[in-house]
Amino acid sequence: MNNKIPALFTDLYELTMAAVYFEREMFAPATFSFFVRSYPKNWRFFIFSGLEEVLSALEAFSFSEDDLAYLESLGLFKPVFLDFLKDLRFTGDVWAMPEGTIFFTEEPVLEITAPLPQAQLIETFVINSLCFNSLIASKAVRSVLAANGCTVVDFSARRTHGIEAALKVARNSFLVGFSATSNTLAGKLYRIPVTGTMAHSFIESFSSEAEAFSTFAEVFPENTVLLLDTYDTLTATKKAIALAKKLEAQGKRLKGVRLDSGDIGYLAKEVRRLLDEAGLPYVKIFVSGGLDEYEIERLLKEGAPIDAFGVGTKVGVSADAPYLDAAYKLACYDGRPVVKLSSGKKTLPGEKQVFRFKKEGLFQQDLVALREEAFGARPLLEKVMEKGKRLKPEPALEEIRNYIQEALECLPDKLKAVKPSEAGFYPVEMSSQLARLQKAVEQEIRRKELI
Amino acid sequence: MNNKIPALFTDLYELTMAAVYFEREMFAPATFSFFVRSYPKNWRFFIFSGLEEVLSALEAFSFSEDDLAYLESLGLFKPVFLDFLKDLRFTGDVWAMPEGTIFFTEEPVLEITAPLPQAQLIETFVINSLCFNSLIASKAVRSVLAANGCTVVDFSARRTHGIEAALKVARNSFLVGFSATSNTLAGKLYRIPVTGTMAHSFIESFSSEAEAFSTFAEVFPENTVLLLDTYDTLTATKKAIALAKKLEAQGKRLKGVRLDSGDIGYLAKEVRRLLDEAGLPYVKIFVSGGLDEYEIERLLKEGAPIDAFGVGTKVGVSADAPYLDAAYKLACYDGRPVVKLSSGKKTLPGEKQVFRFKKEGLFQQDLVALREEAFGARPLLEKVMEKGKRLKPEPALEEIRNYIQEALECLPDKLKAVKPSEAGFYPVEMSSQLARLQKAVEQEIRRKELI
Repeated sequence: MNNKIPALFTDLYELTMAAVYFEREMFAPATFSFFVRSYPKNWRFFIFSGLEEVLSALEAFSFSEDDLAYLESLGLFKPVFLDFLKDLRFTGDVWAMPEGTIFFTEEPVLEITAPLPQAQLIETFVINSLCFNSLIASKAVRSVLAANGCTVVDFSARRTHGIEAALKVARNSFLVGFSATSNTLAGKLYRIPVTGTMAHSFIESFSSEAEAFSTFAEVFPENTVLLLDTYDTLTATKKAIALAKKLEAQGKRLKGVRLDSGDIGYLAKEVRRLLDEAGLPYVKIFVSGGLDEYEIERLLKEGAPIDAFGVGTKVGVSADAPYLDAAYKLACYDGRPVVKLSSGKKTLPGEKQVFRFKKEGLFQQDLVALREEAFGARPLLEKVMEKGKRLKPEPALEEIRNYIQEALECLPDKLKAVKPSEAGFYPVEMSSQLARLQKAVEQEIRRKELI
Repeated sequence: MNNKIPALFTDLYELTMAAVYFEREMFAPATFSFFVRSYPKNWRFFIFSGLEEVLSALEAFSFSEDDLAYLESLGLFKPVFLDFLKDLRFTGDVWAMPEGTIFFTEEPVLEITAPLPQAQLIETFVINSLCFNSLIASKAVRSVLAANGCTVVDFSARRTHGIEAALKVARNSFLVGFSATSNTLAGKLYRIPVTGTMAHSFIESFSSEAEAFSTFAEVFPENTVLLLDTYDTLTATKKAIALAKKLEAQGKRLKGVRLDSGDIGYLAKEVRRLLDEAGLPYVKIFVSGGLDEYEIERLLKEGAPIDAFGVGTKVGVSADAPYLDAAYKLACYDGRPVVKLSSGKKTLPGEKQVFRFKKEGLFQQDLVALREEAFGARPLLEKVMEKGKRLKPEPALEEIRNYIQEALECLPDKLKAVKPSEAGFYPVEMSSQLARLQKAVEQEIRRKELI
């Protein structure tokens, strides 16, 4: 999926604006900044994802003959502009935080500098990709943190907003620490471990639950996780125990059982007790059904003896926060820094850099500054593309996964809480030079435009 | 996008279950029902969408050599099963409501009957497609109803969960009555009208707002909608009026203006007043920015003189209800009706039909019955696929669009309200024969399984 992003995936206004730029020969470099404006409820940080997809799309950017024929059919564009589009490639530079970086609101995560028509035409895709990938990475890591070392796996394929979304959920949840996905296509494309148990329909297809259980174990003796709630969870537990004993007699071990409905906390304790009493401490308990970070934390807090969580819908669509309040905004055109003044939607002018200060190994504060400034802290934005070419190969998933785990170690615990205190946001400040520039540009605009 | 749905887009457990069915030669016909269990807050009906995508996927169902090589690499499956998958095609029957049908909770919308391994393997994709398409159609129609005849257009491309999701949002919102989309790729693929205005970055790229306005109008004299809120909406209105007057002198007409932030209701009234006082009643007012059915209704109730609504994020991700509580459940295997008893997740046994009773031209009640029953009302499920082949060609979008508009005429007003009364759900009853069957199957299971 998505190896080639169609350049035509863009809002029509990007094309009409580009046509005007073309007519007026406005090809000077423009810098756009991507940033997130606000946190969803209870979130205190984000994980940056989508950069690698964006870079691949920029490298492959071009309109097909088909696309151009369609645009011509709209009767909006002059042939000379369509000729321009035909040869158009992305030739700009990209500065960005590396894929997997922890970031905060109001700081640029990516800045693109390119001839204005190019930087404009890619807006729709850049926002779409960075928003959704970062959304899911940031949502999924909350389940990992809540699970506190227990296994978490992705079961969302059936409920995401399409197949492409399902693939992105599998990739991003793996990046932030999920162990596996049920999505076999994602397994193939990304080489993520795949996992699964059995469905209620499987149980119902047999003339009895016990027969369904034993038949599965005959075919997959190493990989049997019995689903217990098709008819009655505790009755099914007794059948699972009988089967586990039979398997033991054959020198095999039942891998686990799964609970998918009812009072999961209570049932997990009861099932664990029955399994332990039967001398089956090694049989693991998997749970699923409407899980998210809040439910995982609640279950573990009440002491439910759960080994693995299958997380589906609520993370796959980021149910309580299904979009990021993010923007891709012009910061500079032809050397002239710009801002908008729209109420509640201000922007920062100029090419920027973000510096992250640490104290005793923990993130302490970020500083948004102009790119040419220097501070005694790590600059987070790196030049990742120059003149349309990636400067480094795409990192392997394991590499990004390790990078994220290391970064999480540096994030203060209060920011990692599932329900953090109302106060206690991470501080992101502006350098005095950037603040002065913003003020100057705003004053100039007020003077010129608000007449 | 998505012309060929990969058969490997399935949960791993569908494959392990299919492997067991294969080993035990369980190839008898299985019937699965797709239905939605509950309404999102304030919803009282759904629009069925995704059928045509599902039928296309079923016709094209097959595993590639690549897929099989990947599955082999997992070390889970026997070569003889992989050989079986290699030749596997979908050969089943599908009964469904036509694409665009209005439907309600707890009634089957689609039933698939096929050899058990086939019916199982397609589960993940069938749920994914029907859930998301129906979700968006059902969410988007609420904006159309709230807009009460005003134009509504799709601006969601940048915030959907990927490109595939954006295309599905454009298609479904057009089906339910949106006039156009900003998504140019959707325009090309589905021949949906495309539309757009201009961005803040466009204004900022020019040395003044007035110059940005006039330049756009020079290049697109027939299609200029000026964005007013980059710096200050009412000051920009004066510049727009000056330009409109200049255009009039050239025999041209400014098409419209767009408001994207601030107190849209107040601003729309002020801008309308200024335009009218300047003798420009024909200049239309477009609004955008965080709109959904609630905001559209609120703006129109307070008398805001708005001509067109650009609806983005909140419909594109169905922000307040980002998934449907839907299921694809086994109803019958090898002639034996089945149910599950899981708490809160009961299912209906057997092959079914839905009858819709009308009174004075309005939908009055639905009755879920066994397929062989007959009542004096229209049966909604039609046989749309037989032995893996579509029985009718895919309808044109315009045809589905008209079908939906006609159906909405038959839906009682109280079900169409944006905020309906707490009571007043549409009645969906069960035939006494189906109720008897369900009771009998449940009793049989309790007798056999709950020991």
